[in-house]
Amino acid sequence: MTLIVALDPPVGLGDPLTWALGIVDSLHGVVRGFKIGLPFILSAGIKGVERLSERLGGAMLIADLKLADIGYVMSISAKLLADAGVDAVIAHAFVGYKDALEDLKKMCDDLGVKLVLVVAMSHRGASEVMWKAYGDLLEIALKVAPWGIVLPATNTDLIRMARKRLRENMRILSPGIGVQGATPGEALCAGADYEIVGRLITLSRNPYQKAIEVLEMQKEMMRLCS
Amino acid sequence: MTLIVALDPPVGLGDPLTWALGIVDSLHGVVRGFKIGLPFILSAGIKGVERLSERLGGAMLIADLKLADIGYVMSISAKLLADAGVDAVIAHAFVGYKDALEDLKKMCDDLGVKLVLVVAMSHRGASEVMWKAYGDLLEIALKVAPWGIVLPATNTDLIRMARKRLRENMRILSPGIGVQGATPGEALCAGADYEIVGRLITLSRNPYQKAIEVLEMQKEMMRLCS
Repeated sequence: MTLIVALDPPVGLGDPLTWALGIVDSLHGVVRGFKIGLPFILSAGIKGVERLSERLGGAMLIADLKLADIGYVMSISAKLLADAGVDAVIAHAFVGYKDALEDLKKMCDDLGVKLVLVVAMSHRGASEVMWKAYGDLLEIALKVAPWGIVLPATNTDLIRMARKRLRENMRILSPGIGVQGATPGEALCAGADYEIVGRLITLSRNPYQKAIEVLEMQKEMMRLCS
Repeated sequence: MTLIVALDPPVGLGDPLTWALGIVDSLHGVVRGFKIGLPFILSAGIKGVERLSERLGGAMLIADLKLADIGYVMSISAKLLADAGVDAVIAHAFVGYKDALEDLKKMCDDLGVKLVLVVAMSHRGASEVMWKAYGDLLEIALKVAPWGIVLPATNTDLIRMARKRLRENMRILSPGIGVQGATPGEALCAGADYEIVGRLITLSRNPYQKAIEVLEMQKEMMRLCS
């Protein structure tokens, strides 16, 4: 399963937990996991995260708070999220190894939680500093040896470069499909393991049907590029 | 008032909200503000933030989630925090201006919330990428024109460099005092406006007495360096 769905609750569409549970139920058995961010966690609370985690039926729950603090603070946060049933946490590579990701990785290993590091983002501001530091950020990721890294589907060159340097078992998760511009399957063709899709699926009238379409487009692209 | 207290609830010392309210009450009228982070917000919830904000009696409440996402996600988060009574939010300069801090600044202005940008951190891992990008990060801060920026008290050279480049009315908030190594007053002497102190005060037997001591040390240092 090559699809992860980002559950970013739309503003003004009622209770975020009810909304998220509806999407989760409708995508049962179709996706590898769901990604929740700060807006969901702030509005639904850690109790909402617990409720969501109980309804996943085998799918992964990824907390995408883009942790970017000292190791102590990130580790406590990871512990609180793991206690609520989260399977993976996302942190920024740019905070570095020493007294930061080193500590978080250790905590994640102790908790049995998967660590995912953001190595590049796709919005325009990412070119101002992050892309210039791409080499250093990738090196930090190699040192931390997380479960996976995040690279944008809108810049498949970065994915190709990373795939050559990473060990086989380090996953690449790739957002930016749909509203942000990339086509389903593009990132997979470049070497990503999972594509993260949000609004294209969650705001469609029929999220299940749309998810199936995305999976079919992925398969078709993979067939063409392999 | 030159002191901001970081309310990072110690693990295993009971309910974080009760703990934080106790500290806030004991420091009434003595400090400029309080800073809360992800561990507090995850455990006390947005309701806990509301409860805390109602007890401040004029002190500022700063949400230090070190936001580091695209503008849309950071803006929604800032809105939810503002609705709970937060006066200022901290984000990373690292994510850049376009489609990121530009949007967040606009949202903060609309909400009447102060924006504070992290330009440098003090842990060892900060030297791996962040310090190398210091010039770029400071430029981004100048472009965003936030209410303030964060620079570590443990590296007063960075504070001196920034103070020369920043407009008078852009505040410098400086953590790293006490447990992390800097002496109260050092950052102020280098050009900071506020020093952020956490455990040195919050874990002391008498937080009020300790805060008064810190303020006196600040005054003494300022007298010596001016």
